[in-house]
Amino acid sequence: MAGNSFGTAFRFTTWGESHGIAIGAVVDGVPPRLPLTEEDIQRYLDRRKPGQSRFTTQRREPDTVRILSGVFEGLTTGTPVSLMIENQDQRSKDYGDIARKFRPGHADYTYQEKYGIRDYRGGGRSSARETASRVAAGAIARKVLGDGVTIRGALVQVGPHAIDRNRWDWSQTDANPFFCPDAETAARWETYLDEVRKSGSSVGAVIEVVASGVPVGWGDPLYDKLDSDLARAMMTINAVKGVEIGDGFAAAELSGEGNADEMRINPDGSVRFLSNHAGGILGGISTGQDIVVRFAVKPTSSILTPRQTVDIDGNETEILTKGRHDPCVGIRAVPVGEAMMACVLADHMMRHRAQCGG
Amino acid sequence: MAGNSFGTAFRFTTWGESHGIAIGAVVDGVPPRLPLTEEDIQRYLDRRKPGQSRFTTQRREPDTVRILSGVFEGLTTGTPVSLMIENQDQRSKDYGDIARKFRPGHADYTYQEKYGIRDYRGGGRSSARETASRVAAGAIARKVLGDGVTIRGALVQVGPHAIDRNRWDWSQTDANPFFCPDAETAARWETYLDEVRKSGSSVGAVIEVVASGVPVGWGDPLYDKLDSDLARAMMTINAVKGVEIGDGFAAAELSGEGNADEMRINPDGSVRFLSNHAGGILGGISTGQDIVVRFAVKPTSSILTPRQTVDIDGNETEILTKGRHDPCVGIRAVPVGEAMMACVLADHMMRHRAQCGG
Amino acid sequence: MAGNSFGTAFRFTTWGESHGIAIGAVVDGVPPRLPLTEEDIQRYLDRRKPGQSRFTTQRREPDTVRILSGVFEGLTTGTPVSLMIENQDQRSKDYGDIARKFRPGHADYTYQEKYGIRDYRGGGRSSARETASRVAAGAIARKVLGDGVTIRGALVQVGPHAIDRNRWDWSQTDANPFFCPDAETAARWETYLDEVRKSGSSVGAVIEVVASGVPVGWGDPLYDKLDSDLARAMMTINAVKGVEIGDGFAAAELSGEGNADEMRINPDGSVRFLSNHAGGILGGISTGQDIVVRFAVKPTSSILTPRQTVDIDGNETEILTKGRHDPCVGIRAVPVGEAMMACVLADHMMRHRAQCGG
Amino acid sequence: MAGNSFGTAFRFTTWGESHGIAIGAVVDGVPPRLPLTEEDIQRYLDRRKPGQSRFTTQRREPDTVRILSGVFEGLTTGTPVSLMIENQDQRSKDYGDIARKFRPGHADYTYQEKYGIRDYRGGGRSSARETASRVAAGAIARKVLGDGVTIRGALVQVGPHAIDRNRWDWSQTDANPFFCPDAETAARWETYLDEVRKSGSSVGAVIEVVASGVPVGWGDPLYDKLDSDLARAMMTINAVKGVEIGDGFAAAELSGEGNADEMRINPDGSVRFLSNHAGGILGGISTGQDIVVRFAVKPTSSILTPRQTVDIDGNETEILTKGRHDPCVGIRAVPVGEAMMACVLADHMMRHRAQCGG
Repeated sequence: MAGNSFGTAFRFTTWGESHGIAIGAVVDGVPPRLPLTEEDIQRYLDRRKPGQSRFTTQRREPDTVRILSGVFEGLTTGTPVSLMIENQDQRSKDYGDIARKFRPGHADYTYQEKYGIRDYRGGGRSSARETASRVAAGAIARKVLGDGVTIRGALVQVGPHAIDRNRWDWSQTDANPFFCPDAETAARWETYLDEVRKSGSSVGAVIEVVASGVPVGWGDPLYDKLDSDLARAMMTINAVKGVEIGDGFAAAELSGEGNADEMRINPDGSVRFLSNHAGGILGGISTGQDIVVRFAVKPTSSILTPRQTVDIDGNETEILTKGRHDPCVGIRAVPVGEAMMACVLADHMMRHRAQCGG
Repeated sequence: MAGNSFGTAFRFTTWGESHGIAIGAVVDGVPPRLPLTEEDIQRYLDRRKPGQSRFTTQRREPDTVRILSGVFEGLTTGTPVSLMIENQDQRSKDYGDIARKFRPGHADYTYQEKYGIRDYRGGGRSSARETASRVAAGAIARKVLGDGVTIRGALVQVGPHAIDRNRWDWSQTDANPFFCPDAETAARWETYLDEVRKSGSSVGAVIEVVASGVPVGWGDPLYDKLDSDLARAMMTINAVKGVEIGDGFAAAELSGEGNADEMRINPDGSVRFLSNHAGGILGGISTGQDIVVRFAVKPTSSILTPRQTVDIDGNETEILTKGRHDPCVGIRAVPVGEAMMACVLADHMMRHRAQCGG
Repeated sequence: MAGNSFGTAFRFTTWGESHGIAIGAVVDGVPPRLPLTEEDIQRYLDRRKPGQSRFTTQRREPDTVRILSGVFEGLTTGTPVSLMIENQDQRSKDYGDIARKFRPGHADYTYQEKYGIRDYRGGGRSSARETASRVAAGAIARKVLGDGVTIRGALVQVGPHAIDRNRWDWSQTDANPFFCPDAETAARWETYLDEVRKSGSSVGAVIEVVASGVPVGWGDPLYDKLDSDLARAMMTINAVKGVEIGDGFAAAELSGEGNADEMRINPDGSVRFLSNHAGGILGGISTGQDIVVRFAVKPTSSILTPRQTVDIDGNETEILTKGRHDPCVGIRAVPVGEAMMACVLADHMMRHRAQCGG
Repeated sequence: MAGNSFGTAFRFTTWGESHGIAIGAVVDGVPPRLPLTEEDIQRYLDRRKPGQSRFTTQRREPDTVRILSGVFEGLTTGTPVSLMIENQDQRSKDYGDIARKFRPGHADYTYQEKYGIRDYRGGGRSSARETASRVAAGAIARKVLGDGVTIRGALVQVGPHAIDRNRWDWSQTDANPFFCPDAETAARWETYLDEVRKSGSSVGAVIEVVASGVPVGWGDPLYDKLDSDLARAMMTINAVKGVEIGDGFAAAELSGEGNADEMRINPDGSVRFLSNHAGGILGGISTGQDIVVRFAVKPTSSILTPRQTVDIDGNETEILTKGRHDPCVGIRAVPVGEAMMACVLADHMMRHRAQCGG
């Protein structure tokens, strides 16, 4: 059933297949009179773009976005913003194997069984290429949120190698090809991922996204909680297998005393929390602290080692995936996670305004 | 904005506060001609009911459900099923402290700031008491799914103490007060939780819910994926801070080879997976394997040790929460997690039928 | 599929059958801190209540509403408001005929064919009794809209007898049993409907609902236009067969010159329209003028004259409906139409605020 | 708030402005494995295309549709079908008057007041040009419905001149430029509309759309009734001011006896109605008879006679609209009404399947 839309007040719908003519998104509900140019969107697409280092797929896609509607004389009009990115470098000639064999870990088998048909070229609709549309929508969401809200993502673990959080430096995330906030760890990953890449293997990763400047009060309990919407949002990203808010799974090991985020009053009368185990959300509503979300990405399923599988006719066979793939899809998931955070927050900013004014 | 509904084709809306007149749910979209009695629902409510052991709140609530509509001569009619559970044991006399002070870890502060008002009695709308309504809705969802789908939950970690998965025995989950599938660990938890309870403290937990018998093909990519709906579902449960599908966060440490669920053909021609790292979902669609979800619950925020906080007038103060609370809310989260799994699956069963027939 | 909810930001879900235990509504998205008592709702229910004159059904229902949630110390809290009205006077003893025969003009046949089952007692879910829930929801919607918006309905035609619009006097609508704004016509209807009633027949009617004080700017083009939502809203009311906005069908006969609502500037700088052919809506958005909606109600299908029909076993037969029915259901549709107008406007007030602020 | 989507299971979202780069639609939820080519869609677009006779706007738009996604090797894949129609003949040079003055009867004033900005070129988003996207979506909906359901529309009244229903001949609707089923009346309209056109005036019209072959059981009471969805659907079409189902407003004048659609059993055991006052819908659910909907379109607001209005700066002024406009927009509303009927039915076919199977 129709499932290609996300959000309620700020709502986007994406379309397009990896090796089709184009991909795109329609963003509906955008507040009017926001300045918006293609360049505003392009800068975020460029962060996600493939082929920027040897650690991501070498597919050459300029990922140039066009705004087809909803903007007039440089301002949004309140009508749907239609965005299109043409596919350039499909290399679609030879799909022999992938057309008939199901790649383990990919959506080949489930799409085929659900729909009785699938566009197997480059993964079709299930390809991570679709995430470009999300990043484009996220760029508009940031405009909706305005300068008061800052959304930043970082890669915090690659395979078994986690960063040292004491060395966290946001400025580093633009200084290495991994969006890594810890320069030392980034250097170590470089060596590690070179090995992974050369062996034709792949690894998983963990991404952390933080939103600062979110006021207290966003989120709609009980079923559209800010955290449940974030969990859903992150879990829609390709290859994601886990989502945490604040302390996440570590909270299971805490005592009630250890988990309590105590509160004090600032000299100016505002409220101050002494810790943020909750990740900035209580009862599904933002506390005014940083919103902290982490999600785990499984290793790229496309690898050079043959794996046992079956084909569309019910025969046993094996498959290995050549082609141009990311050894660690987690890297490019960073801007995607930021975009999803932005979209969830823009939606809840507007939803809060609907019910509570202001 | 309106956020108290869950699901699309199978859709429920809950209402009610912890110490109000009643709580309840309206379940819409229920297929017609399903046998349904109050007893069918009551048996699941009884599993979640408070006061069944010394490890859950001692509040005395019979949690007796009434079906007010949507059933005629013992069968569902296709019209909304309205369910009501009257609150009995509110003990609402004295709320002095809680009325004006914000309990750390609770939703007091965020509800007050969002809405400018809150029903502080027993946590009002943000109380876990609301989960009784979910369990009731889940009982109907199980009817929709039929006997072919089995949904079972277990507590797999309490504080730092995890079960031994080699001792997993589903029959044990009804043999101890923890829904623990490992008898030895259950015995150890008993001692541990007695200490926690006596010290007036609390601990977190991890719950695992498994659905067997789900056919391949349920789930609507890209934004209503089966896993993203499950992540959202579990994250709406009180105190949940993390959700995993299949290997979850552990997948980040795997290689592509290690993560691949290889496929073979059974003698009868059906497909067999050699492992289930994916937790039964690929590309947002069920694979036909067990659906495996885990979620982490933070420690109960209500503890006897005083914590620093602020009051509604902006004064610094401290608070401790007497009253009747679960030392580990994770225990009663087991039937709630099962119910949410059932509701997500019933919804997707029907959604799949809408688009793909059969 | 789930279809018992109405609205997006201001959203209500109704449940209950004519001769079941109770009927009710859950109203979600209500802004917080609105004063709300049962009496605020009861006064509107009392306008719709059966048995108030010899021209409506003689079923004796006090229609006493209870607020079960969402209100604390006399104020809404932003959480769902659950409303329940217990059924009292069901007289359910004997349903022999109606249980097996399909009454022409009623929903008996279609419910039976769609669901394979139906609660035939008093029409079950398809009974106009459900409209009490809407009137209750509408009372809350009026609170959301505040005193600046006035919503009034009137019966403007009964069978072939229309009012004289030159004699329109809103104060008359409370002075006769028909909500008729024209005292002379009301007197004539009295005689006419007595005849209809005594002959065991029934007639149709036309209702007009007018909202004053709606500011310019509410409504969400293109598919949630204010007028399309109103058309949907009115068409959901039992027995409604047509809806018009402003000049409605008469607009088909106008020329472009005759249809243009010309505009002028008031001394205070505000805009003034010289006419209101559009019924207060242009491009799906309110103009600031009165919103004018009319809808046609077919004659009550329950009549004393036998009609040919078939039974549930596929036999030809005939049926006549005794019992206590409205000779003209249009009368009691007036407060229902007002309620639906209120709900649509409250929803769009909040939706406008979400996207455009203010 | 986001309002540019229609439908639930079969759901389309449109985007684009009259004089922007392109217009389009994303159709989500399309069942898989339906044969679909651009030609399948183009034939319906060609029926709506401007400039086909002297009675519609002379704007030259080929309205060539491109399918950008969701179709693979000639079959739908179950993923979103993205459709794009490039705008060719915008003639956007000179908008002097229209940029600053509000045209009476148009959406200029309300868009400006709601959003604080508007794309005034050719009416921007509020232009009837958008209806091409609906016709394209409708062509896909027809594929979903299959050959068993036939949807046909006709113009039944132009200004004060109605057809003679005794002369109704569906084959005539393709034999004159008006989709008129009555050849004699079509000839009279030709003369009449020539006069209207030459005088620079315009007239309204009434359209009737009939669906045959719809089985009993589609429609979701109480708020997603088949008739309420149709009323909403038709009222979203530009310039529509009224919608009727079956006898519509005429039902108000009937007696219960006259309105009853009596039922008999056919020799083959199936049910036969002796009349169709209800227009094929009872209780919001299809009866198996023809679904009959009529809607009224107001006269084109763009006329050559100057009308009093105001400008964006609050000055009184007057305006006349040159340009290329339809003297009767009702003509081209016929294929649009058919498309909306198709989309509503496809949605309810799928929704019915979700809840009731089959």
